[in-house]
Amino acid sequence: MIKKIAILTSGGDAPGMNCAIRSVTRFAAYKKLDIAGISRGFGGLIDGEIQDLSSRSVSNIISRGGTILKTARSKEFLEKKFREKAYQNLIQNKIDALIIIGGNGSFKGASVFNQEFNFPVVGIPGTIDNDVSGTQRTLGFDTAVNTAMDVIDKIKDTATSMDRIFFIEVMGRSSGFIAAYSALAGGAEDIIIPTKAPDVAEIVRKIEQGRIKGKRSWIIIVAEGVGETSVLVEKFGQFISDVRVTVIGHIQRGGSPSAFDRFLGAVMGKVAVEALLDNKTQHAIGWVNDQAIVYPLKDAVQSRKEDLTYLHEMIHILT
Amino acid sequence: MIKKIAILTSGGDAPGMNCAIRSVTRFAAYKKLDIAGISRGFGGLIDGEIQDLSSRSVSNIISRGGTILKTARSKEFLEKKFREKAYQNLIQNKIDALIIIGGNGSFKGASVFNQEFNFPVVGIPGTIDNDVSGTQRTLGFDTAVNTAMDVIDKIKDTATSMDRIFFIEVMGRSSGFIAAYSALAGGAEDIIIPTKAPDVAEIVRKIEQGRIKGKRSWIIIVAEGVGETSVLVEKFGQFISDVRVTVIGHIQRGGSPSAFDRFLGAVMGKVAVEALLDNKTQHAIGWVNDQAIVYPLKDAVQSRKEDLTYLHEMIHILT
Amino acid sequence: MIKKIAILTSGGDAPGMNCAIRSVTRFAAYKKLDIAGISRGFGGLIDGEIQDLSSRSVSNIISRGGTILKTARSKEFLEKKFREKAYQNLIQNKIDALIIIGGNGSFKGASVFNQEFNFPVVGIPGTIDNDVSGTQRTLGFDTAVNTAMDVIDKIKDTATSMDRIFFIEVMGRSSGFIAAYSALAGGAEDIIIPTKAPDVAEIVRKIEQGRIKGKRSWIIIVAEGVGETSVLVEKFGQFISDVRVTVIGHIQRGGSPSAFDRFLGAVMGKVAVEALLDNKTQHAIGWVNDQAIVYPLKDAVQSRKEDLTYLHEMIHILT
Amino acid sequence: MIKKIAILTSGGDAPGMNCAIRSVTRFAAYKKLDIAGISRGFGGLIDGEIQDLSSRSVSNIISRGGTILKTARSKEFLEKKFREKAYQNLIQNKIDALIIIGGNGSFKGASVFNQEFNFPVVGIPGTIDNDVSGTQRTLGFDTAVNTAMDVIDKIKDTATSMDRIFFIEVMGRSSGFIAAYSALAGGAEDIIIPTKAPDVAEIVRKIEQGRIKGKRSWIIIVAEGVGETSVLVEKFGQFISDVRVTVIGHIQRGGSPSAFDRFLGAVMGKVAVEALLDNKTQHAIGWVNDQAIVYPLKDAVQSRKEDLTYLHEMIHILT
Repeated sequence: MIKKIAILTSGGDAPGMNCAIRSVTRFAAYKKLDIAGISRGFGGLIDGEIQDLSSRSVSNIISRGGTILKTARSKEFLEKKFREKAYQNLIQNKIDALIIIGGNGSFKGASVFNQEFNFPVVGIPGTIDNDVSGTQRTLGFDTAVNTAMDVIDKIKDTATSMDRIFFIEVMGRSSGFIAAYSALAGGAEDIIIPTKAPDVAEIVRKIEQGRIKGKRSWIIIVAEGVGETSVLVEKFGQFISDVRVTVIGHIQRGGSPSAFDRFLGAVMGKVAVEALLDNKTQHAIGWVNDQAIVYPLKDAVQSRKEDLTYLHEMIHILT
Repeated sequence: MIKKIAILTSGGDAPGMNCAIRSVTRFAAYKKLDIAGISRGFGGLIDGEIQDLSSRSVSNIISRGGTILKTARSKEFLEKKFREKAYQNLIQNKIDALIIIGGNGSFKGASVFNQEFNFPVVGIPGTIDNDVSGTQRTLGFDTAVNTAMDVIDKIKDTATSMDRIFFIEVMGRSSGFIAAYSALAGGAEDIIIPTKAPDVAEIVRKIEQGRIKGKRSWIIIVAEGVGETSVLVEKFGQFISDVRVTVIGHIQRGGSPSAFDRFLGAVMGKVAVEALLDNKTQHAIGWVNDQAIVYPLKDAVQSRKEDLTYLHEMIHILT
Repeated sequence: MIKKIAILTSGGDAPGMNCAIRSVTRFAAYKKLDIAGISRGFGGLIDGEIQDLSSRSVSNIISRGGTILKTARSKEFLEKKFREKAYQNLIQNKIDALIIIGGNGSFKGASVFNQEFNFPVVGIPGTIDNDVSGTQRTLGFDTAVNTAMDVIDKIKDTATSMDRIFFIEVMGRSSGFIAAYSALAGGAEDIIIPTKAPDVAEIVRKIEQGRIKGKRSWIIIVAEGVGETSVLVEKFGQFISDVRVTVIGHIQRGGSPSAFDRFLGAVMGKVAVEALLDNKTQHAIGWVNDQAIVYPLKDAVQSRKEDLTYLHEMIHILT
Repeated sequence: MIKKIAILTSGGDAPGMNCAIRSVTRFAAYKKLDIAGISRGFGGLIDGEIQDLSSRSVSNIISRGGTILKTARSKEFLEKKFREKAYQNLIQNKIDALIIIGGNGSFKGASVFNQEFNFPVVGIPGTIDNDVSGTQRTLGFDTAVNTAMDVIDKIKDTATSMDRIFFIEVMGRSSGFIAAYSALAGGAEDIIIPTKAPDVAEIVRKIEQGRIKGKRSWIIIVAEGVGETSVLVEKFGQFISDVRVTVIGHIQRGGSPSAFDRFLGAVMGKVAVEALLDNKTQHAIGWVNDQAIVYPLKDAVQSRKEDLTYLHEMIHILT
């Protein structure tokens, strides 16, 4: 029977992680469970950086970006001997189950750990990239898209005022979700995403046609997964003038979480604890059809593949 | 065959309406259809306030709240003779189909009109209340919840600094969606919603208990459908000190739409035009399971009933 | 010689108070002084709620609204016997000087206390009302004006979309600063401020004239000091239709401080400590001609009187 | 006697330019003057892109970033023959005076033009850099500092959560104003500005000391005028791990203007028209001691030099 749960955040930080930590902690307290927080992800687990959490520990964190537990990517956790050490730390702290908030990479580590030691694990998908298989939304994606959209809105002021072409690089690793959603929301003219090599000549042609018709500014969103944005943009610069680049970078990882991400964090945190109490011990929490689901962790380890062609077409039609 | 579509916004304005207007207009242009905009909802339709729209008419509106077509609630449209006049205006302007962005009330009018004159109509649910039956989200809800949450975040600064009890009235007519979602996202301590009479004594008891334990501030979200918030709050004021009220009011109807509402407006606008071209002429557009659906208008005329008890409980548990 | 300073916040909370607390604390630490924080203003001073502060105590508060020291209005402090108690608490805690962040009322109390016990006091003007005599800006005013302006921007979406007349009540007690500045920044059509009785007939006439010319929406900012906004608005409602009221209320007291208020808090906090070390022991800190000044506390006790007529006229001309 | 005024925006766009355009236009209309808008700065003046403006032309622009008149940097205007052409266009359009919104560079061109043709010119300092001599504030600076501060707030979430060192490059050309103000407001640990070569070894030492004491994240603001931020950061990367760079870039040039910039635009626009009517025909408008001033244009042509050492020291002391 589960009496004590530990929670950690792993991989890149994402807005809403704190909301999930709060929800796990308070719902666990409500269920009379003990709860521990592990610092710096798997690294902190290996190093034994484990502290008890109470309902009070998670006061006033709902509106804060980042993660109060800190997060990291641990290379050590790839090695069996360190996972063994991690396991020993859990046992010594009388921890019966582990809730992990992170992306695919973290879920992969969690899955290996679960199988190796038969240790109960539940994963909450926390990443701005929205690229976890089996869930329609990950924690942090909505905030990141809103942040990227705000940047597009701002850049558009200069692009329009100065008749310029802007390339804006957004995050998303190998996925194009942030690029497609923020471009559609921000009214950008085009996107370049990893799944489809950009037709430079075609884009240049459209920009030139636009200029002839009087449309003199243009915003193109580039997903980081495409590769070297600056190299790509140089290519464009050979054919068209007044080209600029902005790399949003870590700006889109921070900030107070949006209402949806706070909501999602609250619901997923609660359902994660319920799943453990319901003996689901190698599972992930997803958001499908407007509600939380519990599904096998192994199905969440993969990157989500989704064809974004229809969004790509909409962006072309609507601008 | 449909050659010309008209669009109007009706009822209370909602953030994202402009995004849907833009999407309808540009997608219709892409499909070589003519498109007209009707001012001030059904009232403007009766008065013949109809103008052609082009792709250019809808430039730079994606980030703006409200509706460029203006909106109103029309009492005249309840009378047959005025609906007859509206119909004649559509015929005279060679309009073959009507897209209506609004809530239940507007859909009811649209439905009557559709049956009376056998005139093709498609409805896009645009209301901050999220209370349209058959769709999981309405246009404007996400923005309104974010706005209400921002207000809660701000009020919390004073509530905490001055040890006060705040009642915050949010919109939502007879539904509790905005109240429940914004309370959960904002970390409010309780909600009072129309579907459940508040237990004043119980809430007072919890506040007093909290004060004894050192929790001296408290935020309670009240849905406008509950009735006179000021009267309700006076009741509380008899038992507890330092009670304040804030009525968010029309603040939550305005503002630049959130990324999700802009996305939703783009997708629903496109799907509305496609539905008409696909001969779906008495239908509404919904958002279900992370995609747009087309369903009978008559199923959208009802108020959405959803049991919010699980959210109510979560709010209690998480605070 | 001053070795230990105490700091308290008094009166209504204002954004930027935390920045000043942080600055006082860290600059005092840099000067090798001890520093204590007093909770709940003069009330906490009377009750002996005094705790040591270190540089670390004020981490991560720069971006937060409200005040970590909590604040209140103390009736007891009006009585000599309680001030005596307050004095004893200072002596017992070996506190040599007091920094008070608050408005006129708080400065009045501080001034009496200073004279009564010859106890060193420096005041930092912290109030959203901008009504402290001798300083061009108070801490919190810039944030409050920005918040009120955001509300005007949002309300304008509905006002324009629905052809309505909105009265928006802003804070500012008996002063018209927030009203005038936010109206000018928000592009409101008129203001009603305490120093000038509104000419209802004249405003109605202008609205009606506007409607004839096609300007159908109107936003009027009302300073709370005018009195019962709802009563006033009813008067207007007798002559014109579609009138609505929004009371911003405590929303404008909270929120993350603006850049200027954080800047001002940092500078004023530092200068307050410097003043004490410079033996200025009955003084206030002001902001004049783009820099901090130190001036006699007695000159800051009065309400600032400033003729806002030129702003009133500009609002009329520019809309 | 002046009967018709033209207005143009020049150089980089800045938030608040639209507010000044609106103010000039409406105040001129109030004074019964005709008013023309020139597109794309001096370039548009040379090419004769001149259109009449009315009070209605400037509706709904108060809250928008950028400039509705568009702006550019004109190389042609450096040549006498093109300035001659510009002058002829003014004469042909019966324009009696020119109001220019821009920075030093634009003022320089305006000054030459004024002397060459004895043509009345008034300049409004519109640039985010705050580097115009003779004025304490330029239009757009306050908004840019707020935007940069928001970025710092967001980056801090990741810096803290992941124990990283961030260098954030802000704009400001050769001046350090944006860097110093945003760093102080955002609570950054250090700044690197053009006027003082950075002591890499000293900064590295402080970071390492901090890490030993448990302070593991660090944010350093770099003014663009320092030169190649990426090269600089590489230097640091040789000594310390987990270093990241973010270049805010054009993000800080856009966005809805802050309350102060809207206020400043309104006041400066009005005073610019008054100056012309008052026969001040080779002047600039400044903001000094909380009010607008009119001073000789030649005194505004220089870059503002201000010693920011005291802010630099405050940043060190307060973090």
